[in-house]
Amino acid sequence: MDALKKGWFSELHNLWPGQSMSLEVEEVLHAEKTQFQDILIFQSKTYGRVLALDGVIQCTDRDECSYQEMMAHLPLCSHPNPSKVLVVGGGDGGVVREVAKHSCVEEIHLCEIDQRVVELSKQYLPQLSCGFSDSRVAVHYQDGAEFMTQHPSQFDVIITDSSDPIGPAECLFEQPYYEKMKKALRPGGVLCAQGECIWLDLELIQRVAQHSRAMFPVVRFAFSSVPTYPCGTIGYLLASTNEATVFESPVRVLSESQVELMNLNFYNSDIHRASFALPQFVKKVLQPTS
Amino acid sequence: MDALKKGWFSELHNLWPGQSMSLEVEEVLHAEKTQFQDILIFQSKTYGRVLALDGVIQCTDRDECSYQEMMAHLPLCSHPNPSKVLVVGGGDGGVVREVAKHSCVEEIHLCEIDQRVVELSKQYLPQLSCGFSDSRVAVHYQDGAEFMTQHPSQFDVIITDSSDPIGPAECLFEQPYYEKMKKALRPGGVLCAQGECIWLDLELIQRVAQHSRAMFPVVRFAFSSVPTYPCGTIGYLLASTNEATVFESPVRVLSESQVELMNLNFYNSDIHRASFALPQFVKKVLQPTS
Repeated sequence: MDALKKGWFSELHNLWPGQSMSLEVEEVLHAEKTQFQDILIFQSKTYGRVLALDGVIQCTDRDECSYQEMMAHLPLCSHPNPSKVLVVGGGDGGVVREVAKHSCVEEIHLCEIDQRVVELSKQYLPQLSCGFSDSRVAVHYQDGAEFMTQHPSQFDVIITDSSDPIGPAECLFEQPYYEKMKKALRPGGVLCAQGECIWLDLELIQRVAQHSRAMFPVVRFAFSSVPTYPCGTIGYLLASTNEATVFESPVRVLSESQVELMNLNFYNSDIHRASFALPQFVKKVLQPTS
Repeated sequence: MDALKKGWFSELHNLWPGQSMSLEVEEVLHAEKTQFQDILIFQSKTYGRVLALDGVIQCTDRDECSYQEMMAHLPLCSHPNPSKVLVVGGGDGGVVREVAKHSCVEEIHLCEIDQRVVELSKQYLPQLSCGFSDSRVAVHYQDGAEFMTQHPSQFDVIITDSSDPIGPAECLFEQPYYEKMKKALRPGGVLCAQGECIWLDLELIQRVAQHSRAMFPVVRFAFSSVPTYPCGTIGYLLASTNEATVFESPVRVLSESQVELMNLNFYNSDIHRASFALPQFVKKVLQPTS
């Protein structure tokens, strides 16, 4: 806190040297060091409630719609009939909230390593944690990789809603983790993982895409605008065990009235298709070979 | 300078209260108050050279490709044969640099109100100002609206590369200015204007879109990722005098080898199409009626 100026939260990190996003703080609601990380929740002046882990903004009320909706609906609308979904990480509840909007989904498992994130989100972030109240949701406080090893061939969709590849989430960007996801997926299963930033992390994105392509017949990268993430954008890595999957063209297209009913603020089927179009400097590096 | 921390440039502005983007400064190269605005040029730690006008970042070497390429190629690839192009503002030269990549273009007029922006860009921002060396470019130090009144029915494409609607650029978002653009366009002419930010300026965008729709048969809004603009994204308002124009589907599609030859870092025809897909909260407000 107050790295740059009193009363402001500034995000300084060696993952994005020389740049910093700051939000004006109205009130610090909670600060705690858990077994895994520093948790900070504050009321901001213009972005509503903010959750930061290890000094990095995870979500704000004002712009969380983009990330949560894309993380959930990109994979769920790319699967013809998702019934059993696993979310790894995502202890704030935002992705679970979005997954629960699909009536075809029968079971939603959330595997969060840090129980305090879930507890504090329930206490301070109702806009996100409301997802936990759905009766189809089961929360497991456990390492996601371990959980998947114990549940082989069980899930239609696995969503990895991780923080940056430093600290507890580092292993979630590595090949062994992707192998575990593959084994935990049912035939035809689809995965979506937080894919970092095209302007900052192109080498990491390329590495993850490469090891994913060695395992999955279809791998694609999408991104969307999220003002409070570094450089204002975040990526999504999608992979399918079904070679017929065409991520750019959702198998489940949402009508305007479905979008309305699902109370979507960011996602619609046009945005789904468009999010896979890559700027030339990204395309050059990630040009899909599959 | 140093609003938040010594050695950092922080963008604090009442157009985006409660948030601030900061860049670490290596060296201030030039600071000057002209008749029109404060000009600041600095060498940043990780974004190359940076131009700021009245304390607001206009472009950085690292991410200028997105804005300059989209501003130029969205309208130029939406016109079947653009020959005469006017750029209003854009004194840094970046948009002119991109326009000059189209061999069908015979004349490029730049109308910049502040001569010092052009002069300082030539001195300190070679990556952008290299556009001025093209023999088809004529620079006019004049008010853009006045210039257009003197040149009726002359241009195939008019690009308004303005700063924010406060200070010298305020009038460039108003209806009278759009009427002048309409009169300065040839039949079938197309315009593209800096369209502000979907997360911050939706009311303004809606107002500009509305008065544009009263004048032009086709009006569309696009946006792209630019890390150093507020919220990391910037919009583009496009309008055509030709009711057959379909902005979402460029009439001049660039092949992979053309993209290579034109040395494009951001724009390609997929990005062109995708940039018109709007998040649901934007679509609700801007849903085109034309």
